[in-house]
Amino acid sequence: MTIDPIDLAKALIAAPSVTPATGAVFGVLEAALVPLGFTVERFIDGIEPDGPVENLLAVRRGAGPVHFGFAGHLDVVPPGVGWASDAFVPEIRGNLLYGRGAVDMKGAIAAFVAAAAATPVEAGTISLIVTGDEEGAAIFGTRALMEHMDARGVRPDMILVGEPTSVNRLGDMMKIGRRGSVNIWIDVPGVQGHVAYPHLADNPIPKLVRILAAIDGVTLDEGTDWFQPSNIEFTDIEVGNGATNVIPASARARLSIRFNDQQTGAELVEMIERIAHDVEPRAKVVGKISGEAFLTPPGDLSALVAEAVHAETDIMPELSTTGGTSDARFLHALCPVVEFGLPNATMHKLDEAVAVADLHKLAAIYRGVLMRALLD
Amino acid sequence: MTIDPIDLAKALIAAPSVTPATGAVFGVLEAALVPLGFTVERFIDGIEPDGPVENLLAVRRGAGPVHFGFAGHLDVVPPGVGWASDAFVPEIRGNLLYGRGAVDMKGAIAAFVAAAAATPVEAGTISLIVTGDEEGAAIFGTRALMEHMDARGVRPDMILVGEPTSVNRLGDMMKIGRRGSVNIWIDVPGVQGHVAYPHLADNPIPKLVRILAAIDGVTLDEGTDWFQPSNIEFTDIEVGNGATNVIPASARARLSIRFNDQQTGAELVEMIERIAHDVEPRAKVVGKISGEAFLTPPGDLSALVAEAVHAETDIMPELSTTGGTSDARFLHALCPVVEFGLPNATMHKLDEAVAVADLHKLAAIYRGVLMRALLD
Ligand SMILES: [Zn+2]
Ligand SMILES: [Zn+2]
Repeated sequence: MTIDPIDLAKALIAAPSVTPATGAVFGVLEAALVPLGFTVERFIDGIEPDGPVENLLAVRRGAGPVHFGFAGHLDVVPPGVGWASDAFVPEIRGNLLYGRGAVDMKGAIAAFVAAAAATPVEAGTISLIVTGDEEGAAIFGTRALMEHMDARGVRPDMILVGEPTSVNRLGDMMKIGRRGSVNIWIDVPGVQGHVAYPHLADNPIPKLVRILAAIDGVTLDEGTDWFQPSNIEFTDIEVGNGATNVIPASARARLSIRFNDQQTGAELVEMIERIAHDVEPRAKVVGKISGEAFLTPPGDLSALVAEAVHAETDIMPELSTTGGTSDARFLHALCPVVEFGLPNATMHKLDEAVAVADLHKLAAIYRGVLMRALLD
Repeated sequence: MTIDPIDLAKALIAAPSVTPATGAVFGVLEAALVPLGFTVERFIDGIEPDGPVENLLAVRRGAGPVHFGFAGHLDVVPPGVGWASDAFVPEIRGNLLYGRGAVDMKGAIAAFVAAAAATPVEAGTISLIVTGDEEGAAIFGTRALMEHMDARGVRPDMILVGEPTSVNRLGDMMKIGRRGSVNIWIDVPGVQGHVAYPHLADNPIPKLVRILAAIDGVTLDEGTDWFQPSNIEFTDIEVGNGATNVIPASARARLSIRFNDQQTGAELVEMIERIAHDVEPRAKVVGKISGEAFLTPPGDLSALVAEAVHAETDIMPELSTTGGTSDARFLHALCPVVEFGLPNATMHKLDEAVAVADLHKLAAIYRGVLMRALLD
C-alpha cells in the first residue's frame, strides 16, 4: 500500500485546525493510519483558553527490536488576512502546494505516513506522536501525550520531530538540540514625589538602571561545541510617567534569556533575583520558563538521519541548535531526539507553501531514516 | 486715600482669569491704580495656545531717587471641581477669604496697591509689573513686559515678587533665588529583531542603560551657601514593546535637572549629550530649559524686606532658594529681586483661601518695604 504525501497533505490542510486543535484533522490522519496497521488512540484534554486539545498516538508493532517514533503537530497558527487563495483550501500553483500548515507541519505529518506505508511492517515498531497544541500554550499537548504513552508502556528508542528545520533548501539543516527560553520581569517599587523635592521621594529608576547595568555586565557562558553562547536581551522597560516634574512610583523591566545546556531556567531566574535584590531588596522578580535547553549529542541518531538526507539530496545537513523552542524539549526526556523537516521560509506567513518535489523527497528521506533505524 | 486689600482682593477674585488671562481683571486693577496717581499701560500679546496674554505696567513717579518695583501675576490656575463655594465668587467664612487666586496671587496684588496707597507719592518711584501669564507657558508674559519696560525706559532699582513664599505662617520664608530647571529627552535608536537571533538586531536598551548608569554616577555639585546641590532625576523610561520575544527598535528616557547657580541649562544639556554620545553616537538628546538658576545674594534688598517682615510679624524670614520657578528668573536680569508673600498651603488647591488678618498684615509689610526702600 502506498500513500501519496501530496494527497494526504491536501486532506490535512483542508481540515482547519487553528491552535488549539481538535476534531476533523485528526480523523483524516486516523483514517490514513488504520489501513496501514496502526493502532490509533485519540484523546482530548484541557479546557479553554489553553484547551481543549486533541492528541493522537498511533503505534504499529513490528518484529524488529527497534521502536522509532515520529513526532509532530496538526495545529496551525492563524492564517491572517491577505492570502492569494483560501488558507484552508489546498491549492497547487506552479510547483508549490499552498495552504496553512503545508510547511509547519501537515506536510511532514503526511510524509511520516507515506514513509511508514513504504516500510515493511516486520522491520520494527513505528509510532506517531501527534498533538493539537504545539503552537499555543502546549500545556495539554505533548506533555499529556507523554503521560498517555507512559500509561500504555509506549517508549520509542529514538524520535524524529518533523518541524521545518531546513533553511535555504531541503536537507541543509537538522536540529540536535534547542536553547532554553525564560522571560523575567523585574519590578522596582519607589515613592512618588516632585522632582524639586527629591528627599521626599524615592526614585525607582536609578535602582532599575543599576540592576540592568549589573545584568548587562553578566557573561553567562562562552557557548559550547554545539551551542552558541547564552544571551540575555532586555525586551522592555516601562515607567509610564507622563509628568515631567514627577518622580515615578515604580519602574519595570522585562528580559528574555535564550540559554544553552550550561544553564537552567530556574538558576537564571535566581541569579537575576540575586542581582536585583543586591540593589533593592524590595524588587519583585518573576520568571516564566518556556522551556529548558536540551542536546542530543551527535551520535547514531543524527548520523542515520544525516545519511538518509544525503542519500536523497546529496547534501549533508548542518547539525544545529539555533532557533526557538519545539516539543523536542519535552520528548528529550524519553530518548534521543532530533528534528528534521521542510524549508521554513514561509512558515507562519501568508501564502505558506511547500514545493511538491520537496514533500515527495521528504517522504523518501523519512523512509530512509526508518530503514536505517529499524534494520541497520 | 486708603485701599482695603480685602475689598480689592475680592474684586480681583470676582473677575475670573484662568491662565492665559486678559480683560476684566486688569480693568479692576487699573481702576484701583489710576486714582492713586499711577500711569497705567495695558497691552495684549501672543496668540493661541500660549496667548493672548494681557500685561499691565503701572508707574507712579516720586521725588525720591529710588525706584521700587512690585511684580506679580493676575492669571490663576484652573479651579478644578469640588469647591465648597464658587471659586470665582469671593466669600469670607470664619477668618478666611476663599477664592481662586486668594493666595496665588491676587491677594498680594491687592496688598501691593494698598501699600502704595499708604506711601507718600514724594517718597519715590513705584511701579507694578503685572502679567496675565505666569502659570502657563510664560512666553508672552513677563518677558514681553520687560521689553515694554525697556522701550519706556522703566527700570526699577529693586523688585519684590509677591509669590506666596511663606510656609507655615506669614513671614517665615522669603526667596532670594530659585533653582533652574531643564527637562532632557534621550532617544536611543536600535534595530528590531527576534531575541533568538540577537546578531541580526541591535538592542537599544543596554545602551540606554549604560547612558543612564553614567548619568546616575554624576555629581553636579555639592550645593553652595545658598543652594542645595543640583539634582538629576530620571522621570520616565519608555520602550513600548509588548512582545516578549522581540528586541525593540528604540528606547527613550526623560530626566529632569533642578540646578543651582553653579550650572547653566545649556551646559547641562551638552553634558548629557556628551555622555549619551560616548555610548551611542546616534542617540538623540533634546533639552528644554524652563528657567536658569538665579541668586540675589543677601544684601540691602533682602535685609530691608526681612526688617519689614520682622516689624509686623516678630519673626525673621528664612532666606531660601528652594521650590520651583517663578518670573523672578526673568526679572533678575534688571536688578536685585526677592520674593515674599502669603503662606502657600492652599495655592493651586481646592478651596484656596487667605487669612483676612494675613492679607492686612501683608499690606503693612509691603508698605514697610516701600518706606525702607524709598526713604532709608
Ligand atoms: Zn511547528
Ligand atoms: Zn503664582
